[in-house]
Amino acid sequence: MEIDINCDLGESYGHFQIGADEQVFPYISSCNIACGFHGGDPLHIERTIERALKHGVRIGAHPSYPDLAGFGRRYMQIPPDELRALIKYQVAALKGMTESAGGTLAYVKPHGALYNRAADDPVEARALLDALLEIDPGLALMGLAGSLLEQMAADEKRPFIAEGFADRRYSAAGRLLPRTRPNALLPTPEEAAAQACRLVLEKGVVCDTGTFVALQVQSICVHGDHPAAPQVLQAIDTVFLNAGIRKKPLTPKKHLTL
Amino acid sequence: MEIDINCDLGESYGHFQIGADEQVFPYISSCNIACGFHGGDPLHIERTIERALKHGVRIGAHPSYPDLAGFGRRYMQIPPDELRALIKYQVAALKGMTESAGGTLAYVKPHGALYNRAADDPVEARALLDALLEIDPGLALMGLAGSLLEQMAADEKRPFIAEGFADRRYSAAGRLLPRTRPNALLPTPEEAAAQACRLVLEKGVVCDTGTFVALQVQSICVHGDHPAAPQVLQAIDTVFLNAGIRKKPLTPKKHLTL
Amino acid sequence: MEIDINCDLGESYGHFQIGADEQVFPYISSCNIACGFHGGDPLHIERTIERALKHGVRIGAHPSYPDLAGFGRRYMQIPPDELRALIKYQVAALKGMTESAGGTLAYVKPHGALYNRAADDPVEARALLDALLEIDPGLALMGLAGSLLEQMAADEKRPFIAEGFADRRYSAAGRLLPRTRPNALLPTPEEAAAQACRLVLEKGVVCDTGTFVALQVQSICVHGDHPAAPQVLQAIDTVFLNAGIRKKPLTPKKHLTL
Amino acid sequence: MEIDINCDLGESYGHFQIGADEQVFPYISSCNIACGFHGGDPLHIERTIERALKHGVRIGAHPSYPDLAGFGRRYMQIPPDELRALIKYQVAALKGMTESAGGTLAYVKPHGALYNRAADDPVEARALLDALLEIDPGLALMGLAGSLLEQMAADEKRPFIAEGFADRRYSAAGRLLPRTRPNALLPTPEEAAAQACRLVLEKGVVCDTGTFVALQVQSICVHGDHPAAPQVLQAIDTVFLNAGIRKKPLTPKKHLTL
Repeated sequence: MEIDINCDLGESYGHFQIGADEQVFPYISSCNIACGFHGGDPLHIERTIERALKHGVRIGAHPSYPDLAGFGRRYMQIPPDELRALIKYQVAALKGMTESAGGTLAYVKPHGALYNRAADDPVEARALLDALLEIDPGLALMGLAGSLLEQMAADEKRPFIAEGFADRRYSAAGRLLPRTRPNALLPTPEEAAAQACRLVLEKGVVCDTGTFVALQVQSICVHGDHPAAPQVLQAIDTVFLNAGIRKKPLTPKKHLTL
Repeated sequence: MEIDINCDLGESYGHFQIGADEQVFPYISSCNIACGFHGGDPLHIERTIERALKHGVRIGAHPSYPDLAGFGRRYMQIPPDELRALIKYQVAALKGMTESAGGTLAYVKPHGALYNRAADDPVEARALLDALLEIDPGLALMGLAGSLLEQMAADEKRPFIAEGFADRRYSAAGRLLPRTRPNALLPTPEEAAAQACRLVLEKGVVCDTGTFVALQVQSICVHGDHPAAPQVLQAIDTVFLNAGIRKKPLTPKKHLTL
Repeated sequence: MEIDINCDLGESYGHFQIGADEQVFPYISSCNIACGFHGGDPLHIERTIERALKHGVRIGAHPSYPDLAGFGRRYMQIPPDELRALIKYQVAALKGMTESAGGTLAYVKPHGALYNRAADDPVEARALLDALLEIDPGLALMGLAGSLLEQMAADEKRPFIAEGFADRRYSAAGRLLPRTRPNALLPTPEEAAAQACRLVLEKGVVCDTGTFVALQVQSICVHGDHPAAPQVLQAIDTVFLNAGIRKKPLTPKKHLTL
Repeated sequence: MEIDINCDLGESYGHFQIGADEQVFPYISSCNIACGFHGGDPLHIERTIERALKHGVRIGAHPSYPDLAGFGRRYMQIPPDELRALIKYQVAALKGMTESAGGTLAYVKPHGALYNRAADDPVEARALLDALLEIDPGLALMGLAGSLLEQMAADEKRPFIAEGFADRRYSAAGRLLPRTRPNALLPTPEEAAAQACRLVLEKGVVCDTGTFVALQVQSICVHGDHPAAPQVLQAIDTVFLNAGIRKKPLTPKKHLTL
């Protein structure tokens, strides 16, 4: 059994440090690199790309609403044309910098509030899909498993990587509990590792009401800005070893057949 | 006789409008498009690229120090590694957005204080040359004719477009008078047109002390944020017509022969 | 008959100019000065305060969501504590700079999307009222006539200036049509002047569906970033002269009686 | 014997955390609170003011060049009028927020590159002194002991707090070694504590060349963004206890006698 493990990295901004990137890289197969709008100045982006290449980790762009103060975690009402252009700008910057280091940009995963909004809002999902198509039709989109976004990507035969979360609690509808909820985060590395394992073996999670929610995922996210990210990843390593699960970037679910 | 006419465009930022871009496009052969750091939000960048393609105008990236409040016109002491990364980020964003619209990014012209500093500071010139090489060795650099930057580009056989200014006054050393000087700008469209004409026909300008300064230029700049930019360009059109000078993007002076 | 005429001013940001402030000042009795978050750098703020004092115009602070790229005109989902702190910061900056020039900060009018949201959202209205109370209980709040915000201010006996708009179209519910609607702005200075006149004489407006909507206003706003702002103000001047209406800052509706 | 101990605090920005503020407060008598331009969003500013009041710590404003990405540590060439306005804006915001919490803003200490530049550049020193005079003539200025800035403040009988650094190495000229120098920071809490002690008892420091440099200081700075700040402060506590030195905010050197 195989699964991709991804982490949000490169989110430091100048003197402001976030994430234990160097400790996280050995444990992951894909990294979503901040593009400067919620974190990630050009020098940190460059260094994160170099680290990803050194560790053989697949590179994705992690575009956001333009909100450094809010770390891209709050909704902004941006007109669709502008949103599409914002995403193109960020993805183009990451793509060019990745290629300049000899790498390949493999996918795009929206960040924070944009991730959550685009999961179920057809207008924002449209802006995201169009932005990727305009920059590079081969770019896969990583997004929430079971979302409207996944459905729209499937309908258009666009490459999509369905994602689940190790360290976040789900609702019965298969959505992430908002971070404002006290139980939004799984409290221990062991619980996060158990949820990661269940996502692979049982193809689902136990949601906040205690029932099982089915989810077909190709990648599992661990949040890089969480202080315990290295511990969560080590715990996943251990349970995966016992369960015979290998970490590896998987082929996106639906290949583009334009 | 032929010469390239370039203009800084796409510098509007959201609701903040700068430049009469639509009026300027018919008169120019190259445009330097703001990359978001001194002006130019992603949507304005996208629209400016589309206009350039519609008018058949060559596209260049116009990266800047990160200083929206100062419009990139004041020096910032940025470490060389960070400066190189900042330029790569901006050029990559412009390149990807240009290519997504079916165009080609042809060159890079630094903006404002970065332009002036990189003209004669070997460290900033180095950061600029390295950034371009890392993003795309084929990208030409546009910079001040007669500068250290031109010399360094020539020594490394890098493609360079030597530039003169129609609407700015020169010192006897062949440098632009700082904008803080009262006579930094030529006061009328006619004087700017005459200076443009002299740059082509006599290969030089009359500087602020009244003496002739020799300059070999392949492109002439008219500032797009100047309210009289369309008038300056019309005046140039008239004198060029009389003098038999054609506007056209020229081949960069020294081709890269790696 | 008397009425206050207010205008949003000081919204220029560095090299980015917005508004014909110098032409507008002679026609108004109150000005809402941008605080740096949607426009208005410190130097433009300082100059606008000086101009207001020179023209004898009452000074208000015009705080916004932190969104320069969107000119504060799009909703941002900011937690109430942070919103309250953002408003305090902006109002404190304006207050201190006004007092340093020998003036008095008289009121606060929220800008753009914050204005519209706080008009009817009890959480954002609460954050706004609390911010003012914490900075200075004597500060009046200027807001939409007939809004929930007005009602909350009245319930707490807080000083409130009920405002109507000369140049914006109203819905039947007494709210401004969103700027995304084609008929959101009144098209001519004459129509804006007529609406201003009706607000004073008939205490209401004719809304987009053609029916009369009653509104009790103490101040009328003309948008300073509109290119025709001076013409609108001149047209108002003319109709006011004919109708015997005097422009003058009025006493806020409900005085604070703590 | 008595001395003031100050620390730069409140520099966190949204999700980006800097400094162990809560651990530092018990050890200091004055705090310099970031004003939003190099760090310090409004909510962190508010919380830092509240903590300072709770701990009975004197409050100062810590204005900076507008450079979040560079943490205010790199020189920016800002025209004097604009610099003066930038400082007024930041100090006014801090002053208003401090007073709204029932506190008093006691002094202003410039941050980072502005601190170093204003120490010896008469134009920037002038802008700084003027900004304070315009906001509140009673505000003391905290700056480098032995600097031109101190001399200018003395000549104008302005209240000044002469400052020395526990954790930074000095040159023979009594200036701080630039942070780009490898030995710019004292490596251990013990060395920093010894330098603090020497500043009080011997009225000077041993500079990078090994010679003694005389310095008359009224306050000693420990950098709050340094990971070892709490350890440095504890070490100072220990040596001060042994040496009989009490920590306490001292009266500024020269009182304003306008």
